[in-house]
Amino acid sequence: MTTDELLQGYARLAVEIGVNLQPGQDLQINCFPEHLELARAAADAAYRVGARWVDLNVTDPHVRRSLIEHGPEEELESTPSWLLARLEDVAERQGAVLLLVGDAEPDLFSSLDQGRVAKARMKDLRTRQLELVATGKLSWAIIGSPNPGWAEAVLGEPDVDRLWEAVGSTVRLDEADPVAAWREHIKTLKARAASLNARGFDAVRFTGPGTDLTVGLSPRSRWMAAETKTAWGQTHVPNLPTEEVFTTPDLRRTEGIVRSTMPLVLQGTVVRDLELRFANGEIADVKASSGEEVVRKQIETDEGSKHLGEVALVDGDSRVGRTGITFLNTLFDENATSHIAFGQALQEAVEGGADMTAQEMAEAGVNDSSVHVDFMIGGPSVDVDGLAADGNAVPIIRENAWVLTLDA
Amino acid sequence: MTTDELLQGYARLAVEIGVNLQPGQDLQINCFPEHLELARAAADAAYRVGARWVDLNVTDPHVRRSLIEHGPEEELESTPSWLLARLEDVAERQGAVLLLVGDAEPDLFSSLDQGRVAKARMKDLRTRQLELVATGKLSWAIIGSPNPGWAEAVLGEPDVDRLWEAVGSTVRLDEADPVAAWREHIKTLKARAASLNARGFDAVRFTGPGTDLTVGLSPRSRWMAAETKTAWGQTHVPNLPTEEVFTTPDLRRTEGIVRSTMPLVLQGTVVRDLELRFANGEIADVKASSGEEVVRKQIETDEGSKHLGEVALVDGDSRVGRTGITFLNTLFDENATSHIAFGQALQEAVEGGADMTAQEMAEAGVNDSSVHVDFMIGGPSVDVDGLAADGNAVPIIRENAWVLTLDA
Repeated sequence: MTTDELLQGYARLAVEIGVNLQPGQDLQINCFPEHLELARAAADAAYRVGARWVDLNVTDPHVRRSLIEHGPEEELESTPSWLLARLEDVAERQGAVLLLVGDAEPDLFSSLDQGRVAKARMKDLRTRQLELVATGKLSWAIIGSPNPGWAEAVLGEPDVDRLWEAVGSTVRLDEADPVAAWREHIKTLKARAASLNARGFDAVRFTGPGTDLTVGLSPRSRWMAAETKTAWGQTHVPNLPTEEVFTTPDLRRTEGIVRSTMPLVLQGTVVRDLELRFANGEIADVKASSGEEVVRKQIETDEGSKHLGEVALVDGDSRVGRTGITFLNTLFDENATSHIAFGQALQEAVEGGADMTAQEMAEAGVNDSSVHVDFMIGGPSVDVDGLAADGNAVPIIRENAWVLTLDA
Repeated sequence: MTTDELLQGYARLAVEIGVNLQPGQDLQINCFPEHLELARAAADAAYRVGARWVDLNVTDPHVRRSLIEHGPEEELESTPSWLLARLEDVAERQGAVLLLVGDAEPDLFSSLDQGRVAKARMKDLRTRQLELVATGKLSWAIIGSPNPGWAEAVLGEPDVDRLWEAVGSTVRLDEADPVAAWREHIKTLKARAASLNARGFDAVRFTGPGTDLTVGLSPRSRWMAAETKTAWGQTHVPNLPTEEVFTTPDLRRTEGIVRSTMPLVLQGTVVRDLELRFANGEIADVKASSGEEVVRKQIETDEGSKHLGEVALVDGDSRVGRTGITFLNTLFDENATSHIAFGQALQEAVEGGADMTAQEMAEAGVNDSSVHVDFMIGGPSVDVDGLAADGNAVPIIRENAWVLTLDA
């Protein structure tokens, strides 16, 4: 397939499988300048299936860089009121939001004062976005948008066509009928979630080099995969690609140590060899060979950022993992292998989550934060077990293969 | 000078001479994707002089094209509420707005249904912008941003460096001290305006091939140039480049026929050989060898769009005219030669204009419209006279040279 065919195909998947746009619905697209071509294709696909209005917002990281470098300290954290108004509008209209990712300049902020970098992230906007997502007020999806800078970081050369080929294979554009392939894939992932839910594990445990981590679950934790549903019942697939089965842990019950198995890009900085130690669910110690300060600042954002909000399982069948590529992008890399995230919980992965009061959430250990940072902890040498309430361990992933079945 | 030096120099002029940004002031930048480099440089220059917040909004014409091609008829005219909120915010804060122009794809909409093209222009946003500008509620400026598509249209090849050189010379970046050169230039233009105001002409008359047009003025018409002032007293230079001396005519008193001397780009379509006939101040007849339909739609927008809102005089000394280049862009071409505009009047060019009631404006013949379309009518073979109330003609421009002085 040509790059243009891949681009058109991905745009259609984003609209038809991703946000599952309905006639008359609004679509907001948020992207960086290097994503414009794919954003335009998605906008066109959306109008073709009957969108009422497609609104594109291009965020320019260089303007943000100037703010961080020369702007007044007291404005670093500001969110313009109209960006909040824009977000409220699409939520009120029960619309859809499509986010394009794929960092064109991953080191753009790395030479700046990291305290100022961490502040300049429009916290109010992010908090509200996470709230709306957590409570099913938006049909949303994230897709990756290949560009020269991202290709250079990933492949060592700005070969956008090769990156497109890899991205295309992660989202099954190499199948004869990608939409049909997606329906099948969604079924497989949902069966895995069903098998985990049937077991009712009390915790999951990761063991491997530098890792022995037990993530305690709540009795209300519910394993989910691929598809989610808005408050008004619209199914959508938030991540394209997606290979994970995930749930919300009890924020108080993570213990042990974990070593990240892949780099991640955070606030424009590449974080490598991240190692976290947990005690009573809280991150007690942080180490990294690069980007440590950025992680610390993120973790110190609020009370919730010190605790986990997600745990997710991925095996070696992953279309992302099978490319053998480290994409340096969470959307892709988190689907290459198992991962955890500190910060905001996924309320939809908690029984009755969308309707819980703050007190009920606190009782169930459902985390609340203005950040949500995924990092990868799985791989060929990391085993995953489910722990029953009596401590009995049941293999879920062995030698990177999913071994748990519904009947076993 | 290198293109990068020209870009940095233009960005500084835009901030320091154009909007004349003050410490603590907001700056909103509106541009198209191809203008991002200059927009970033302007944002950086703004933060360096103490901007509180710089907000960049990138409008993508391809998304608009998809709306026009596939969007629902009843939404074509929509303005998203948050774009209006954004504009109100900068006005309430007594901020500045910088607009970047330079069409990268001048024929992007030319194959579309022109009725739909004319509708999809966010009329509410434009109307409010023109109101805020007309009443001095914003410090604003427009600059041109060279890009490959614009260079191709202008020069026949996408030679951005050559276009940058031409644009740089129009805004005096080839001077040793461009800021000082601008101060001198502003003085010259203001002296011309003073000489016109001292005469108190009742009308100006253009005569040349295909043109015999008399534009009647109001006793309250005031000639202006280069610099204007916000309602709170901040001077700014709205157009970079600027070479014109302009005023607001009496909308009821234009008579005769006029032939455009340069093409213009309107709604993404190139309009050539435009010819308009006026009777009792109203456009009675429209002809053009291309783009006629787009002009008709614009003129039919509202009652005000059928009448003039501006008349402006430019002689052959113009830095723009001296490049010998037709820039296919109003900001530049209107500064190459004399021009008129149908639609919204410039209230600041009317004695007491900012504080007039709707009835007073109607009495003085000050036009009100949601459009403002300039087109060029001057040149080497077009003479301009000032007509006194008794009909006596005084030469203003002869053989493309300004001949009127304060003492003559």
